[in-house]
Amino acid sequence: MRLGIDIGGTKTDAVALDETGRLAQRIRLATGFGSAAVVETAVSAVSRLGELTGLAASGFESIGIGIPGLVDSTSGHVAHAVNLGLDRLELGGELAGRLGVGVRIENDVKAAALGAWHLMGLTGTLAYLNLGTGLAAGLVVDGRVWRGSRGIAGEIGHIPVDPNGALCACGQRGCLETVASGSGIARQWRTDDPLPVRALFAAAADGDEEARAIKARLAAGIASAVRVLVLTVDVETVVIGGGLSHLGDRLLCDVHEVLASWAQASPFLASLALPDRVRLVPEGSLAAAIGAALVGEN
Amino acid sequence: MRLGIDIGGTKTDAVALDETGRLAQRIRLATGFGSAAVVETAVSAVSRLGELTGLAASGFESIGIGIPGLVDSTSGHVAHAVNLGLDRLELGGELAGRLGVGVRIENDVKAAALGAWHLMGLTGTLAYLNLGTGLAAGLVVDGRVWRGSRGIAGEIGHIPVDPNGALCACGQRGCLETVASGSGIARQWRTDDPLPVRALFAAAADGDEEARAIKARLAAGIASAVRVLVLTVDVETVVIGGGLSHLGDRLLCDVHEVLASWAQASPFLASLALPDRVRLVPEGSLAAAIGAALVGEN
Repeated sequence: MRLGIDIGGTKTDAVALDETGRLAQRIRLATGFGSAAVVETAVSAVSRLGELTGLAASGFESIGIGIPGLVDSTSGHVAHAVNLGLDRLELGGELAGRLGVGVRIENDVKAAALGAWHLMGLTGTLAYLNLGTGLAAGLVVDGRVWRGSRGIAGEIGHIPVDPNGALCACGQRGCLETVASGSGIARQWRTDDPLPVRALFAAAADGDEEARAIKARLAAGIASAVRVLVLTVDVETVVIGGGLSHLGDRLLCDVHEVLASWAQASPFLASLALPDRVRLVPEGSLAAAIGAALVGEN
Repeated sequence: MRLGIDIGGTKTDAVALDETGRLAQRIRLATGFGSAAVVETAVSAVSRLGELTGLAASGFESIGIGIPGLVDSTSGHVAHAVNLGLDRLELGGELAGRLGVGVRIENDVKAAALGAWHLMGLTGTLAYLNLGTGLAAGLVVDGRVWRGSRGIAGEIGHIPVDPNGALCACGQRGCLETVASGSGIARQWRTDDPLPVRALFAAAADGDEEARAIKARLAAGIASAVRVLVLTVDVETVVIGGGLSHLGDRLLCDVHEVLASWAQASPFLASLALPDRVRLVPEGSLAAAIGAALVGEN
C-alpha cells in the first residue's frame, strides 16, 4: 500500500493506494498554517490513514507528499510556500524524524501531473497545466516527472506573450500568468464575491462587455500555454487542472474555440491538432494526492 | 567508422568518425537540386568517403543523413524541403536501394543538436537553437535526440510573442521567427548585399537607426527563444547555431545584454542564470554532419 498526501493552502487530501494503484482509502484534513502546523498536518494524515488501513508508517511501501512552493525532491527541502506560511522547511527530514521512515517530497503541480497521468490512463508525454492562483505546468515523460536541469521545467506562467501586457509579480510584462490564472483574473475583475472567477463567468453570461473581454483573454492565455507546450516539448496531452478547472466544460469549450479559430488562420497550427490534445482533469480526482503516493516509486 | 552527411541548400558536408568519435575524414560537395540529384549527392558522398577510408558502404558501422524539412526518422521519408526542390522523397528507401545498407535519416537541426552535444562535450539537456532562414530548436536529452510525441518538439519559431507583430508565413502574427531569423531580417532590411545580415550589422555600427532597431529586435527575439526553452524544458545549455551564428560574439554579446537587462528587472529571471546557459556553436564545427554520423546509434 502506498500513501500520498496533497498539502493545499486550506485543506489536505491524503490517499492510500493498493498494490494495483487503486484508491483504497481517502481522508481530508484542514491544513495548519506555518512550519510546525504543516508538519503536524502531514503526521496526522499518516496516522489517520494508518488507522483506516491497519498499517504503521513503516508498513506503507512508500509515503509521498505534494506541496506548493520550490521543492528540492532530493533533499526534501521546501521554500517559498507562501500560502502555507512557510519560508523554508526541511519537510523531508522533519517527517522522517517524526515517522521513522523516509518520505518523498514533490512540488504539488508535478505530483498532480504524475497522478493525472496514472488515473487518466494516459500514454506518451503529458503536461498538467495547473490554473490556480498562478499558472504552471508539470511534465510527465515515460511515466516519470520531468524536472529539467534545475527543477524549473514547466514554469511557463512567466513566459511573456504581450510586450504591452500587464506587469507581472515576477517583474516582467505580459506573462501568461497575468491573464490565465486566478490572480490574473482577480487583478482585472474586482468583486466581493468569494468566488471571483465564477462571478466573472456569470457577468459574462449576462452580457457584461468587460467580463466577456477578461474571459476571452483567459481562454486565449490558456490556448497560448497549450501552444507553447506543444511547440517546445510536443506533449501528446495537455490536462487542465487546478482551481480554474472546476469551471469544467465552460472553460474547455472557450479554449477549444480559440484553438479552432487559430487553426483556421494557420495551416501549420491546424496540423498540430491542438484541440485534440487538451482535456480537463476529472473533477474531484485527487490527482495531486495520488501522484504524491506514486512519486515514492520514482 | 561512422559516416554522416549534412545535405544543405547549396553544399553538402560529409564526415567519417573513427571508433572514438573523432573526425577522421571530411569532404564537401555541391548539393544537387531536386529528388534525383539529392539522392545522387548522398551516394557521391558515401562513395568519396569510401575511397578516402578504404571502406565499402557496408563497411561503415552506420550511415546517417541530416536534411532540412519534415523528416520521419523511422520511415526515412522527407517532405517540404523547399530549398532542395523536394516535395516528398523516400530518401531512406532510395539510398538503401542504391547503397545496399540501411541509412538513418534525421532532420538537419536535430542532427546538429546531437552533433553539438558530442563535439562540445556537453552534459545534461541541450537545445540547439538554429538561426537560419527560419528559427527552430533541436533538443538533446541524455545524449539522444528528443523528438516529442509527433516529431515537432523544438519548433519554437512559431511561438508568437507579440500580438501586434508582423504576419508570419505560418499564418500567425508576431512569431519568434519574424524577428529572429534570416527571413525575418530580410523582410525588415531590404538590401542588394548578398549577405543581408552582415550588411545590417554594418549599417547598425554606422549608426543607422532603423538597422539598430532591427538588430535590437533580433537580439530580443533570440533572448526570448532562450527564455522559452528554459521555462519549458529547462535545458542546461542553449547552443546558438545556423547561418546567423557566423556573426559570432557580436551576436552573442547582444543576446547577453538583453538577458542581463531582463535579470535586472526580474529577480525570478535572474535566478534562472540565462546568460550562463547560452553558447555559440564553434565556427566550422560540422555539427550537423557529425550528428548525422551519430544518429545511426540512436
